[in-house]
Amino acid sequence: MKFEKEKKDCLSKIDKSKKGSIDKKIKKLVELINLLKDYYTTSSCSGRILLIKRPKSGKKCDVGFLFESHNKVSFEEIKVCLKNIPEQDLWFRQESMILHVACRTIENAQKILDISSMAGFKHSGIITTRKKIVVEIIGSEQFDTIIAKHGKLFVGDEYLRLLVNEANKKLGINSRKIKKFYDLIKSLKD
Amino acid sequence: MKFEKEKKDCLSKIDKSKKGSIDKKIKKLVELINLLKDYYTTSSCSGRILLIKRPKSGKKCDVGFLFESHNKVSFEEIKVCLKNIPEQDLWFRQESMILHVACRTIENAQKILDISSMAGFKHSGIITTRKKIVVEIIGSEQFDTIIAKHGKLFVGDEYLRLLVNEANKKLGINSRKIKKFYDLIKSLKD
Repeated sequence: MKFEKEKKDCLSKIDKSKKGSIDKKIKKLVELINLLKDYYTTSSCSGRILLIKRPKSGKKCDVGFLFESHNKVSFEEIKVCLKNIPEQDLWFRQESMILHVACRTIENAQKILDISSMAGFKHSGIITTRKKIVVEIIGSEQFDTIIAKHGKLFVGDEYLRLLVNEANKKLGINSRKIKKFYDLIKSLKD
Repeated sequence: MKFEKEKKDCLSKIDKSKKGSIDKKIKKLVELINLLKDYYTTSSCSGRILLIKRPKSGKKCDVGFLFESHNKVSFEEIKVCLKNIPEQDLWFRQESMILHVACRTIENAQKILDISSMAGFKHSGIITTRKKIVVEIIGSEQFDTIIAKHGKLFVGDEYLRLLVNEANKKLGINSRKIKKFYDLIKSLKD
């Protein structure tokens, strides 16, 4: 009954993420996984486009977002955020879906790894087997680059448009993989 | 004796990588891991800086390298490669160390995951438990961005210098992590 108790405790907890709720784009998938008896999700992000301030300390807790979107973005949306360039290093970043799934057994973990791979989330793995068995599911649709340093912007509009286009394209591929993953999980349940 | 046989078979195989040999920067670490009775490496890269041609197909096998270095690079080295811009999408990319380690048991896999995390390779995980148990050890020191499309270069010298500086800085952090990982593995052996 240990797994059942942990699942119940985890799913009844208040959402501690900055956003405070599950992304709309991934909510159905998360709910579907949480209906399966051998799995539950511990954290999730559907994929996003970001402008990140990275301080010299390099510490994760010191990182700040100048912009964040879980949907495709326009050049104008990004451009307007670049009116005041911060002193810290500024990175343009597009991230894949990331999902942490606690699994009852190693066999269950392997099964969801297989499904992740079939859906195209090829960078997945079991990240711990200590207190819980947790699989991280993540795709290769992501990239990031520095765009400003010491308060100076290093990229022009033309290049920024290229970055936005690439990020939107990859976010589209990522969405199709989420859909495929959902269908595969659903067939597992039926 | 299954694990011993697989280890012997794997280590006696011809190196199938493009390079055909283990990177100098990681050779000592790979040899050290292969001395441990519960582990052996199946593939390795010490980290690198690349110019990659990515065809529309998106297929991994169609990807070509315009430039590859396992060491820090100069702006001039990169610049000279950009005299003739290919038609395919061209990406500037810096990669962390990546190491695939086959482990005798899940407990052995968890142990090397713990050590990886201590050394700073936080993106590690068990990628399969099917035929073999394999841990992928990888760090967060990596980034990539598109720099040319349809035969047109989208970045100027100033921005290219910034990319080169960032890549060199991250490759330096990556090298220090490899050293730390080596020391931790060594203490395990002693």
